[in-house]
Amino acid sequence: MTDIELISDSRCFEGHQRTYRHESSACGCPMQFAVYLPPAADKGPVPAVYWLSGLTCTEENFSIKSGAQRYAAELGLALIIPDTSPRGLDIPGENEQIDLGTGAGFYVNATEAPWAPHYRMYDYVSKELVDVVNANLPVDPGRKSISGHSMGGHGALLVGTRNAEQYRSISAFSPISSASRSEWGRNALGAYLGPDEQAWLEYDACEVIRSSPSGHQLLVDQGTADPFLDQLRPDLLKEACAAAGQRLDLRERAGYDHGYYFVGTFIGEHLRFHAAALDA
Amino acid sequence: MTDIELISDSRCFEGHQRTYRHESSACGCPMQFAVYLPPAADKGPVPAVYWLSGLTCTEENFSIKSGAQRYAAELGLALIIPDTSPRGLDIPGENEQIDLGTGAGFYVNATEAPWAPHYRMYDYVSKELVDVVNANLPVDPGRKSISGHSMGGHGALLVGTRNAEQYRSISAFSPISSASRSEWGRNALGAYLGPDEQAWLEYDACEVIRSSPSGHQLLVDQGTADPFLDQLRPDLLKEACAAAGQRLDLRERAGYDHGYYFVGTFIGEHLRFHAAALDA
Repeated sequence: MTDIELISDSRCFEGHQRTYRHESSACGCPMQFAVYLPPAADKGPVPAVYWLSGLTCTEENFSIKSGAQRYAAELGLALIIPDTSPRGLDIPGENEQIDLGTGAGFYVNATEAPWAPHYRMYDYVSKELVDVVNANLPVDPGRKSISGHSMGGHGALLVGTRNAEQYRSISAFSPISSASRSEWGRNALGAYLGPDEQAWLEYDACEVIRSSPSGHQLLVDQGTADPFLDQLRPDLLKEACAAAGQRLDLRERAGYDHGYYFVGTFIGEHLRFHAAALDA
Repeated sequence: MTDIELISDSRCFEGHQRTYRHESSACGCPMQFAVYLPPAADKGPVPAVYWLSGLTCTEENFSIKSGAQRYAAELGLALIIPDTSPRGLDIPGENEQIDLGTGAGFYVNATEAPWAPHYRMYDYVSKELVDVVNANLPVDPGRKSISGHSMGGHGALLVGTRNAEQYRSISAFSPISSASRSEWGRNALGAYLGPDEQAWLEYDACEVIRSSPSGHQLLVDQGTADPFLDQLRPDLLKEACAAAGQRLDLRERAGYDHGYYFVGTFIGEHLRFHAAALDA
């Protein structure tokens, strides 16, 4: 069992909002994650929703800004909120671009120098973190779901679809639907995976859905006033789902933008969607 | 009518979360404030709850961290959230201490150099901001209440009690109950008001309550795991209210600390308390 270190613990909606740190073997460095444990976790294991955050975020942003704890407390759901990249490695250029390096892991396993030894967020999120959480926290290993925002929406669609048997349900807010056709994604995938774009496709949510749609219904919320629609391309997600027979409930929200005021408005609906799939 | 400039506008719970800037005559500099307008404000004037924030905060902290918009939307309440001090004045020492200068206006009218020309947060919050809001936003001038956190809890008790006829209800989270007997408060009041402690008492919530209790019931939430109890002194608030015949509902919350996870947990109860007093 990996040791985890408790960094902070605040009572919140009669449960606990915590930060943990542990040595990650996937990333070869210490990683932090946040957890919300609902009051039901005092009595026994609860199902968990994993939340993947967007560019520039740490494990704090969703914890502080979403107001999700209120719903998680009511529904009896744990929230597991990883960081978005390794940090503090002194890799040249790691802090120079918002879409590469620190805060921009893009949920891939890098194959290219200088990123490859550490930037393995796909393995971290889909395997190591799950093992750490299952071994140390009062969650039911057989009941988990996944969601996320923007780069983390891409991550949720990607990790959830490629491991559909492991997640009961998948949702996203404003996801980068096709990383290989977004400027942010192309910059990151090129650096992490090299110039052969064929290698990028296993990390492109639309391509993954086209090649192996999940049995799940995807729930996606997208604000119509989002200034980043050219990076997110919900139209490509619709096309890919239609072509693959992937069920998709895409909710276009009039006048909402890309930020956490948008996420906070609809996170309750997403958690209820996951709670239903998780028999919470 | 003072001109106000719209700085940001995000849709949130079918209403609007906005930031405004205006030239403040009380403070002699530009001031920013945040506003949440609930969906009901599209149809006509709504009652308003003023929120005063704590040390180091801007108008953003409560807006981002409290999750209050969800309740305000349901209850049909506007939220008015001022900054906690003037900013950017290049006053010597304004950025050196957390309890003095920027982010630490303490809701007083300073009389001492170099603060006196600008640090007039009592007048700003109790008069000028109210006039600006009433003139420019769809609120009902006859229906307003006040709340706040820590230094802003002190401010809410102070401004609300000294102007009890203008506010329908008063509440606070973790207030600095007696600024003249708190180290933070003594540092600030000494700098803003000078060494004569008699002059401090009109800005000490416990003293104001002792000399003229309001007809309101005060609602106060306080976490028992708050690390700043020696600065906040809820015991002095209880004593002052008992001595003055001031009604007080002091809710001591087991295991909660001083932060916004605590505020977020109970802000819904406070807004329902205010909504009842405001006939919202």
